[in-house]
Amino acid sequence: MVIPCCVPRIISLTTDFGLADGYVGVMQGVILGIAPEVRIVDISHEVRPQDVLDGAFLLLSSYRYFPEDTIHVAIVDPGVGTSRKPVAVATPHGTFVAPDNGVLAPVLAREGVVGLETGVVTGELAVEISNPRFRLSPVSNTFHGRDIFAPAAAYLAQGVALSDLGPHLHRVATAEYPEFRRDAEGLRGQIVHIDHFGNAISNIPASQAPVGAVVRAGGRPIGPLTSTYQEAQIVALEGSTGLIEIAVRNGSASRVLDLAVGDTVEVSVP
Amino acid sequence: MVIPCCVPRIISLTTDFGLADGYVGVMQGVILGIAPEVRIVDISHEVRPQDVLDGAFLLLSSYRYFPEDTIHVAIVDPGVGTSRKPVAVATPHGTFVAPDNGVLAPVLAREGVVGLETGVVTGELAVEISNPRFRLSPVSNTFHGRDIFAPAAAYLAQGVALSDLGPHLHRVATAEYPEFRRDAEGLRGQIVHIDHFGNAISNIPASQAPVGAVVRAGGRPIGPLTSTYQEAQIVALEGSTGLIEIAVRNGSASRVLDLAVGDTVEVSVP
Amino acid sequence: MVIPCCVPRIISLTTDFGLADGYVGVMQGVILGIAPEVRIVDISHEVRPQDVLDGAFLLLSSYRYFPEDTIHVAIVDPGVGTSRKPVAVATPHGTFVAPDNGVLAPVLAREGVVGLETGVVTGELAVEISNPRFRLSPVSNTFHGRDIFAPAAAYLAQGVALSDLGPHLHRVATAEYPEFRRDAEGLRGQIVHIDHFGNAISNIPASQAPVGAVVRAGGRPIGPLTSTYQEAQIVALEGSTGLIEIAVRNGSASRVLDLAVGDTVEVSVP
Repeated sequence: MVIPCCVPRIISLTTDFGLADGYVGVMQGVILGIAPEVRIVDISHEVRPQDVLDGAFLLLSSYRYFPEDTIHVAIVDPGVGTSRKPVAVATPHGTFVAPDNGVLAPVLAREGVVGLETGVVTGELAVEISNPRFRLSPVSNTFHGRDIFAPAAAYLAQGVALSDLGPHLHRVATAEYPEFRRDAEGLRGQIVHIDHFGNAISNIPASQAPVGAVVRAGGRPIGPLTSTYQEAQIVALEGSTGLIEIAVRNGSASRVLDLAVGDTVEVSVP
Repeated sequence: MVIPCCVPRIISLTTDFGLADGYVGVMQGVILGIAPEVRIVDISHEVRPQDVLDGAFLLLSSYRYFPEDTIHVAIVDPGVGTSRKPVAVATPHGTFVAPDNGVLAPVLAREGVVGLETGVVTGELAVEISNPRFRLSPVSNTFHGRDIFAPAAAYLAQGVALSDLGPHLHRVATAEYPEFRRDAEGLRGQIVHIDHFGNAISNIPASQAPVGAVVRAGGRPIGPLTSTYQEAQIVALEGSTGLIEIAVRNGSASRVLDLAVGDTVEVSVP
Repeated sequence: MVIPCCVPRIISLTTDFGLADGYVGVMQGVILGIAPEVRIVDISHEVRPQDVLDGAFLLLSSYRYFPEDTIHVAIVDPGVGTSRKPVAVATPHGTFVAPDNGVLAPVLAREGVVGLETGVVTGELAVEISNPRFRLSPVSNTFHGRDIFAPAAAYLAQGVALSDLGPHLHRVATAEYPEFRRDAEGLRGQIVHIDHFGNAISNIPASQAPVGAVVRAGGRPIGPLTSTYQEAQIVALEGSTGLIEIAVRNGSASRVLDLAVGDTVEVSVP
């Protein structure tokens, strides 16, 4: 007899924990102990250590490709053990569990749930995770991923209501997530991520670039926007999330062009 | 009541995407959104960037250890966004989904489905993945793993027929996968992979070596074929997939002996 | 109709195989071929190569966070292919499958199943894995993870009895796992692990430290025990498994303080 499969919920994990020390495995053990049937997907555990904005970028690039009932856990948490709150926030594209330090800010703004610059929450969609029933006990001062965030996500997956996790929040942390801007010469943004291939990803949507625009990065000319990695040795093109990225064919743009996060990217009609 | 478990299908992933950027997590999100019950196994995401032959080697070493109804996705894709086709190919040991650039060639040849040097496909086992129903929309020019290959694999796992993905192909890409050869002095091959331990794996099957044979690598003598890593400080032995590999006890053969992919390996009776 | 989910067992994996070469994916393929519904959690595949004590530390730090019927596979195996035995051992907190080289010793001692210094097994809880029915065939000399340990764990998950795997063992390997000691000046231990953040973890439980104790590491003063990473630039605090660890705020203690595994840690009342 073929037994039909159930349709379990997904919990995604985005952290700066690395994969070497068992921290991620322990979180998964805690989750599966509470919600045995949930599916766990690792988005990344190689967020740059303690870099909240890098975590925010990776989450922002990824979450829309998951089913809408996914629970996304994002932990980049230099303030673990201090007074920063653990939060859970519901949006139309998933529920998010994280330290309240801005790692969720770009996602929550895009979903229209939180004001990007004010941090003011719409309606009753955000809570502080404080109910001791839904934590491990005792809670350590150094590993809230294991003791608070993993259990909260697992209980949510099991059907616990957001409001059972703790009191509603009217405001959550904002982030100084860099925005591109438009000026007389064109668009001006910056590199926000260097990927595994050395591609340098900017915060400028390709859809905003005028026809015939030419891209400069780190102060040097790259060329006009192209479509694929193979069109020239050095290219500026629309990357997979719609942002302009700089690439070197079969090589690393970061290394060849000496590009790093924070370097200026300019788009203008010459 | 104990609920019996279903038997879901497996999708394996072999890519050069790395684990840092969320690319693999996004593929998994896309897969589980289409086929919620499928099991995903990562073979490797650390194929040397853009190195089609390294991906071909890892897939060739791994696929036979999976159930026969596994769907294997292999993406090393320097030509993403160009005219190279996305393909799906059925074999007796699994269905394979990949860019048509030779990454599948050694597997398909071993399975007798495609001529190694001709690329000619037996029967109606290969298709171009072109049906827009089984892709994300829009399809980017830079991330077909997410937009084409992950959905194709997920729909296959859900029972979509191979021929529904697109038109049959009579020929697929070949690869210049290095073969060992036999000459008057013995066998002559090369290093095809350096593993995590620094073991240098050749393309010469140990079963082909004559009794009493002595191995040389990178021009220097290693010694006779032995059975285990512990038999001498530097050993040549039959590795886990039957190929001769060079190892240093509790150390890295690659570093100690300065061995790299492409270096010559010779097996002869002294 | 919503189909309720089954509650599958978990197999955890702790190895020094790395993630690049497909070794872990192949083990997962073998496991799922035997036990299709089992859940696999990677604790770590970045144990320092061939370092049995590092593997023992990671397993010891992790296993108690998994359900009690979890099957933990731990493979750090410099003696693969030699006469060291493959073993499986039942404990109150999980069943363990590993080479008999001491990688399990600290866990088995903590669970009261094996004498830490004698290796003598209580009752009939340990077996040598030798039954050819529960292995792949042939068994290689270089990859028992694939050929012996993965199948043994999968068959255990399927309900095969421990005693069906092979004959009972009355003694298993011990390990020279470093213990802290107490002397006239206080507590004296050592660094046993450096984590992804550069935190240097000692073998001294914070609960053993006297009130007002001051910590030294690698011969230099660190300061009094604190509670969180943010209390000073350089801190000694109770880490997530209860052990004293040395950390640098938003930085790497290992790099800043030049700390390595084996360096002395002292705790004393000044």
